[in-house]
Amino acid sequence: MQLHSFFNSSTSYRVRIALALKGLAYDYQPVNIRVGEHRAERYVAEVNPSATVPALQDGDFTLGQSLAIIDYLDARYPEPLLIPNEPALRARVLELSSLIACDMHPVNNLRVLGYLQTVLKVSPEQKDAWYRHWVSEGMKGVERILERHGRGAWCFGEAPTLADCCLIPQMANAQRMGCDMSGFPLSFAIYERALKHPAFDVAQPQKQPDFVTP
Amino acid sequence: MQLHSFFNSSTSYRVRIALALKGLAYDYQPVNIRVGEHRAERYVAEVNPSATVPALQDGDFTLGQSLAIIDYLDARYPEPLLIPNEPALRARVLELSSLIACDMHPVNNLRVLGYLQTVLKVSPEQKDAWYRHWVSEGMKGVERILERHGRGAWCFGEAPTLADCCLIPQMANAQRMGCDMSGFPLSFAIYERALKHPAFDVAQPQKQPDFVTP
Repeated sequence: MQLHSFFNSSTSYRVRIALALKGLAYDYQPVNIRVGEHRAERYVAEVNPSATVPALQDGDFTLGQSLAIIDYLDARYPEPLLIPNEPALRARVLELSSLIACDMHPVNNLRVLGYLQTVLKVSPEQKDAWYRHWVSEGMKGVERILERHGRGAWCFGEAPTLADCCLIPQMANAQRMGCDMSGFPLSFAIYERALKHPAFDVAQPQKQPDFVTP
Repeated sequence: MQLHSFFNSSTSYRVRIALALKGLAYDYQPVNIRVGEHRAERYVAEVNPSATVPALQDGDFTLGQSLAIIDYLDARYPEPLLIPNEPALRARVLELSSLIACDMHPVNNLRVLGYLQTVLKVSPEQKDAWYRHWVSEGMKGVERILERHGRGAWCFGEAPTLADCCLIPQMANAQRMGCDMSGFPLSFAIYERALKHPAFDVAQPQKQPDFVTP
């Protein structure tokens, strides 16, 4: 298997956690989205038509979009299952994952921040305030869901699920950007637990072959 | 069943299509996100902790996030299945759905456009350019995926799937905002087909009880 990934992409980070939790080996194919390698003609034509990272190549099968990739990995390599089958639990896992993957992450990703800076010419302070605003709004929802439905050591029980694969990269980004996480103790406890877990550790940005210091 | 929905919310629109395709009756509970009803204390406490629409109430079970809701409906009311089980097809359906739900829609939703206007004080022209930019970027990916993997009358075969539930509201929004869709003929053909399909028709914003003219 090959994973097309950028060390600092939190969608790539989600898939790296999933692969590590499943104990799957893969070739790491770096795609430097800071210099637009995800938009290179060959990458779009041969790997990922949506011109994003991550993308997984599993034999002849190539797939983009982190949540679709993790669903695919669950079907093909079900041990451990990251999206549970039990309907109510499954629904909660997908609800929290969607909140992070749809409502939080996309508004703060590299290309949106880039547009704010280069096209709308916002100041660094305005950009940082934008980032913190959407993290704060999203984390309030995450924390309320965990208060109401969370249980066990991870988001939803005693083993990590897709929800944890989404939460940890989001928390890591928020930490890196200096967001105040003190209002989200349940989320933070899971984040601290994950930092000590080998699969989450090995998936961290600074452990990737394409890592560079900022 | 109750669906908490706003007529003009495209995430609500996705779920309305899914419910109509499955022939499921429901009580329509309007939530006017233009005046912040999704952030009302009672709605957040009793219905949807992520303070968004849509939310589904099915007996005692309440769930937010459109993709999680449609996955839940598939488990509980599998006829017709909107997320296919066959792994390769399923992966494509989830890939296209994620592209729309994660990469396109969130950047252009009401709260983000509101922040641009009220906090960053962008001009109406800058806001419109922002909207069209992300629609255009996302639709290029959608069209490339359909060119490579699409087949049949709908996105992926002879019956609508989750991908179509996501694509049609996105296309309708883009049309409404005056985006040029001429570069996306495969997507547009599916959109035109959907307009004639009863389940897609009944789910349209202008057919909802809370519809108001702009």
